[in-house]
Amino acid sequence: MASQKRVTAAVMIIGDEILSGRTQDTNLNHIARYLGTLGVDLAEARVVPDDEDEIVEALNHLRGKYSYVITTGGIGPTHDDITADCVAKAFGVELYEHPEIIAMMTARWAGELNAARRRMARVPVGGSLVKNPVQGPPGFQIGNVFVLAGVPAIMRGMLEDVGPRLEGGAVTLSRTLKVDGSGEGVIAAPLEAVAKAHPDLSLGSYPFFSQEGYGSQLVIRGRDPAEVEATLAELESALAAVGVAKMTRLDPAP
Amino acid sequence: MASQKRVTAAVMIIGDEILSGRTQDTNLNHIARYLGTLGVDLAEARVVPDDEDEIVEALNHLRGKYSYVITTGGIGPTHDDITADCVAKAFGVELYEHPEIIAMMTARWAGELNAARRRMARVPVGGSLVKNPVQGPPGFQIGNVFVLAGVPAIMRGMLEDVGPRLEGGAVTLSRTLKVDGSGEGVIAAPLEAVAKAHPDLSLGSYPFFSQEGYGSQLVIRGRDPAEVEATLAELESALAAVGVAKMTRLDPAP
Repeated sequence: MASQKRVTAAVMIIGDEILSGRTQDTNLNHIARYLGTLGVDLAEARVVPDDEDEIVEALNHLRGKYSYVITTGGIGPTHDDITADCVAKAFGVELYEHPEIIAMMTARWAGELNAARRRMARVPVGGSLVKNPVQGPPGFQIGNVFVLAGVPAIMRGMLEDVGPRLEGGAVTLSRTLKVDGSGEGVIAAPLEAVAKAHPDLSLGSYPFFSQEGYGSQLVIRGRDPAEVEATLAELESALAAVGVAKMTRLDPAP
Repeated sequence: MASQKRVTAAVMIIGDEILSGRTQDTNLNHIARYLGTLGVDLAEARVVPDDEDEIVEALNHLRGKYSYVITTGGIGPTHDDITADCVAKAFGVELYEHPEIIAMMTARWAGELNAARRRMARVPVGGSLVKNPVQGPPGFQIGNVFVLAGVPAIMRGMLEDVGPRLEGGAVTLSRTLKVDGSGEGVIAAPLEAVAKAHPDLSLGSYPFFSQEGYGSQLVIRGRDPAEVEATLAELESALAAVGVAKMTRLDPAP
């Protein structure tokens, strides 16, 4: 095998709640494993407080040193959610209200789209959106930095839109199956059986809960398109066999 | 209230197994909570690989910036356990075989005290031992740096010998208010107003979503019990004023 350039990443976990011990972080471990399947080396991680100077300094150091930086946390509507402000400052650009996010929010909240919620529509100039398949507004990418939510279920969902943007790691394909009205307690056993039968693939479950309903997005990742496709069909059969009724394929075939 | 010196700490987690995703770290959360009860603010955490240059650089930065540094991991007998070497290098001192540790090991292993095990008896010149009440050799302290094991049960045991050596912290109290059925979009404005009125306190919002419902846990932290208590009541009033109906105090009063 030809030698390949080492592709590296750092994770920056933003949040006083991790440093106070109130919350046990699980995002780092998930991101580490996810990057591993893509052939990207997680080289460093930092947990920083909700403090502008600390965040800007750490981000500028890490984005200069590694191929990619993934941040988690601090993108909600409250006054201590300052990640977007800090990322914009680190890149020396302004924030603006992204029209797509405002449109989504208007559709969802209509007249209740208040100032706090509008904070979550702010994206640095030059940034692009990172899809949020779970609930709430999207994350964003600017340069080699990806800004994701801190809530683990949402972070995991967003991460699926990060992988395809990373260069130089091994190419991985993914297919997504959305299950509505069945919880992880039902899904877990057939999902595990299918995962064990395909050790070369990575299978993940990303549950969602919202005022509209609940379910999970199941993602299959791998390097062999035929195996990914066959496994998707296998998973659908296994889920149907335990009574899962509503399944939707979300991606076009690779 | 008399002003108190802020006592700070950083945690440095040393180990490729955390960065590869093989191991889920739980030490950070435990140390954060432990320091919180002592009134020491955990201000930053880093996860660094088993790489001498990275460890030395990070340690020298952190020990200059914060009151204390606690490291976990990399003090076992294998070739990738390089923490003692790196700490000695960072302080510009030599390692020596500590006679107390050699005596313990001789009692335990006698003729099986091989070269790999002797590695674990090495302590930097000027260091003192940190008791290990659990199993195996002790950790050590040098200057404001505490070097502990990575295995959680052992790390926790060693930590009990760290607390009494930390100076100057003040106890921090926290109260938690659980809000059900109202999202952060509704909570954000009153929370921010109350936070701004009490700059000495730390107020945070930690949303949850599940099949049973959604809401947020609001946490108030500070050093003055009367102010924390009064602010909790103030927050309840401010939330009620914007229509939040279901609130539960989760903690007993301080």
